[in-house]
Amino acid sequence: MPTKLADLPLDLAALRAAYADGLDPVAVVDEVFDRIAALDDPGVFITLADREQARAAARALGARPDGRALWGVPFAVKDNIDVAGLPTTCACPDFAYTARADAVTVERAKAAGAIVVGKTNLDQFATGLVGVRTPYPAPKNAVDPELVPGGSSSGSAVAVARGLVSFALGTDTAGSGRVPAGLNNIVGLKPTVGATPSRGVVPAVRMADVVTVFAQTVDDAYTAYSAIGGYDAVDAFSRDVAIPPLGALPPKLRIAVPDAASRRFGGSAEAAAAFDATLEDLKALGAELTPFDLEPYFAVARMLYEDAIVASRYDAIRAFFDASPKALHPVTRAITESGKRFDAANAFHVLYRLTELRRELGGLWTRFDAMIVPTYPRPHTVADVLADPIALNSELGAYTNFVNLLDFCAIATPGRPRADAKPAGVTLIGRAGADALVAAIGEALHEAGGVPVGSIGRLPPKRPKRAAAIGPDDMELVVVG
Amino acid sequence: MPTKLADLPLDLAALRAAYADGLDPVAVVDEVFDRIAALDDPGVFITLADREQARAAARALGARPDGRALWGVPFAVKDNIDVAGLPTTCACPDFAYTARADAVTVERAKAAGAIVVGKTNLDQFATGLVGVRTPYPAPKNAVDPELVPGGSSSGSAVAVARGLVSFALGTDTAGSGRVPAGLNNIVGLKPTVGATPSRGVVPAVRMADVVTVFAQTVDDAYTAYSAIGGYDAVDAFSRDVAIPPLGALPPKLRIAVPDAASRRFGGSAEAAAAFDATLEDLKALGAELTPFDLEPYFAVARMLYEDAIVASRYDAIRAFFDASPKALHPVTRAITESGKRFDAANAFHVLYRLTELRRELGGLWTRFDAMIVPTYPRPHTVADVLADPIALNSELGAYTNFVNLLDFCAIATPGRPRADAKPAGVTLIGRAGADALVAAIGEALHEAGGVPVGSIGRLPPKRPKRAAAIGPDDMELVVVG
Repeated sequence: MPTKLADLPLDLAALRAAYADGLDPVAVVDEVFDRIAALDDPGVFITLADREQARAAARALGARPDGRALWGVPFAVKDNIDVAGLPTTCACPDFAYTARADAVTVERAKAAGAIVVGKTNLDQFATGLVGVRTPYPAPKNAVDPELVPGGSSSGSAVAVARGLVSFALGTDTAGSGRVPAGLNNIVGLKPTVGATPSRGVVPAVRMADVVTVFAQTVDDAYTAYSAIGGYDAVDAFSRDVAIPPLGALPPKLRIAVPDAASRRFGGSAEAAAAFDATLEDLKALGAELTPFDLEPYFAVARMLYEDAIVASRYDAIRAFFDASPKALHPVTRAITESGKRFDAANAFHVLYRLTELRRELGGLWTRFDAMIVPTYPRPHTVADVLADPIALNSELGAYTNFVNLLDFCAIATPGRPRADAKPAGVTLIGRAGADALVAAIGEALHEAGGVPVGSIGRLPPKRPKRAAAIGPDDMELVVVG
Repeated sequence: MPTKLADLPLDLAALRAAYADGLDPVAVVDEVFDRIAALDDPGVFITLADREQARAAARALGARPDGRALWGVPFAVKDNIDVAGLPTTCACPDFAYTARADAVTVERAKAAGAIVVGKTNLDQFATGLVGVRTPYPAPKNAVDPELVPGGSSSGSAVAVARGLVSFALGTDTAGSGRVPAGLNNIVGLKPTVGATPSRGVVPAVRMADVVTVFAQTVDDAYTAYSAIGGYDAVDAFSRDVAIPPLGALPPKLRIAVPDAASRRFGGSAEAAAAFDATLEDLKALGAELTPFDLEPYFAVARMLYEDAIVASRYDAIRAFFDASPKALHPVTRAITESGKRFDAANAFHVLYRLTELRRELGGLWTRFDAMIVPTYPRPHTVADVLADPIALNSELGAYTNFVNLLDFCAIATPGRPRADAKPAGVTLIGRAGADALVAAIGEALHEAGGVPVGSIGRLPPKRPKRAAAIGPDDMELVVVG
């Protein structure tokens, strides 16, 4: 019996089934725009696509699914990623320009049959993990409206968590593709840096930026990632990272777990207990868990804002910033301004140190297939973050900031729920190119955790049967250029 | 009939033959120290090894060659590379420290049977291509004492060119392993950055520094490179670059040649004619030559000193420089000081631009197997360089400065001689990992050119018969980490 359109949860399996039953993608477009119009949250989207154009795109797909991976799938795009004909604001109205062309990731999603419905809110210039550093109304957290939605990809995460779109594109430098997934009980897939093309994205820290995917399930996120990822010869930051099919969970897994001294939950016993429960799930899946000292990794995290790397954010918008510093959100302005205090020798120094740390701290992959961490120590309320915008933001990034700098990939998924029903979540981290492996682990933990998706209320689906994965030892990162 | 020891030219073939005839390596050590003592040039070495220790090292080799590639081979080391127990001065006496351990390249050379005889002069802190930016007496050019010896690896090149050692280690950031080879009619092999370990080397611009080899012949240079090169897991800048055996010249070669507008000889008709004669040799070897616009490559060269990258030199010696700026050579001080005028955002900007240029300008390797350029436009006299130290240095680097920044490998060899017998020379440039290919081409041109080695007077040897090389298309750069 076909679901009523108003109840369709928009995950890819449900959409595919509905399309197979004859659902018209134009009706899905209408449903999505109706849901957005009816929403009690003006902060999710900064700009909506033109409804008639979206309907026309749906009509142009033809009457029946043609096998394309994202045929008739509605998606949202973080507003630091270009969509042709729409403004790119980076949540800074004075910065806005109308994009002439789609970002490569958007172009590929469209080519796979997906339909853009709008541009989503963000921490201005993708600087932040809170989702409230925006001159627009901040998106409401989908799980608990008192909490921050997380950022910087706040609107993209909430759009998925509230069932407005099937997936959404975000970006991640310090954790922006993971923290808001964790805070809204959805999946955030943060690929290996360079695995998704960055052409058409306003940079934050170019060497560490990557386009990410938010979705209700790991399978959906990985499907969208497979469509938008892959080498772009024109993009100097693109790398030829293999994107194998998502495989079955390997029977043996060696997983690094923060040791007692490295556990950070900001004093939240609920957060700690939820994480421990997920670790039990991981053991039940056959994984061998080994306590691991994360202090050196936390130290890398500090390089991102407290050392010269923050100057890369200033470089990214230098002319605009120098001409119109008052156009920025005060917190974003202060952070960007802080980049000015470092000289070029400082920059080389920190980059060389980072090169050393990549070698030293990347050594863990000889012993482990993946690392599991909480996605963030604990959630914060909007009121608390507004009162203490830097320190609480920093706390949110404890487990995410170091990942891109060290060239690791990651996926954030809901794990076991907290006893108080506040959002928690875990992140699987792997070496560059291990995107499929961490996704497979994340998928298993998502199913085991049983946390309802976003505000949609439905449980994560049972994992599909999958063929044996390419083992971590066979996986190869091809670096071109 | 065995050669008289005083006449032994010290190339590896001659040494091997002499050792096979029973020559004692201790006698070779004595001969080398005698030659150095008798030399009319106090500027080649900054520090000699202890003669008794060198004799002991020779004795420790045993009576007969044991198959090690560098058994009983005397070599010199540029004085920015550590040799345990000897001072490392970087040609700045106030900076000097006594090295506790050998640099990895020195350690590997010793392990292959080679014997260190001393530390050679250089442009201070390896900043320069002239060889006269040193508080010590400058080494004399081995071909024409009125000319600069070239730098920064001046002493290493001259030590080889005057037959004092079989090979010498240099370093190359902007051309320091190539320009002095060209100015002294010897071979300078500049590996892919990261192919030789940099541990134990005082950095100049860490991301673009590489340890190089000077030798009388390409075969000798490649033999030493094979001994000192290869992955060093502890060195964050090390890459796992394949070092295949030196192969035969491929039957078909596609070579890029500077087009008419890109030819720079500083007005020297002799230099232009010598280069043209070498191009004829290359054609005779079966190569297809295609004119190629080098202007975008020359633009990259300017990034090294005229943009924020120069601040990396300041970073390398920051504490020392800030404490003792007067301890530096005035020209080196001015260049290092110039790095202070750039801020961290400038540094990220130029590095991101360089990342783009690596992609854009590296595209030539889809069309060409190698590029041939003059090693430098024309030689300069010591008097002229002292009168105009920056501009003439810059001219010398026209064809070398861009190579490491773009991640290319290169080898400098004498080509056809100039009509006025002043040194000329050509450099073969290839993509990262194509070290063996450019060496094979350089070897053929060295033989064809017929320029006597350094001041030794003997002609380059006839190339050995070699097995078919691994073709450029099969060659693979394995990048680890």
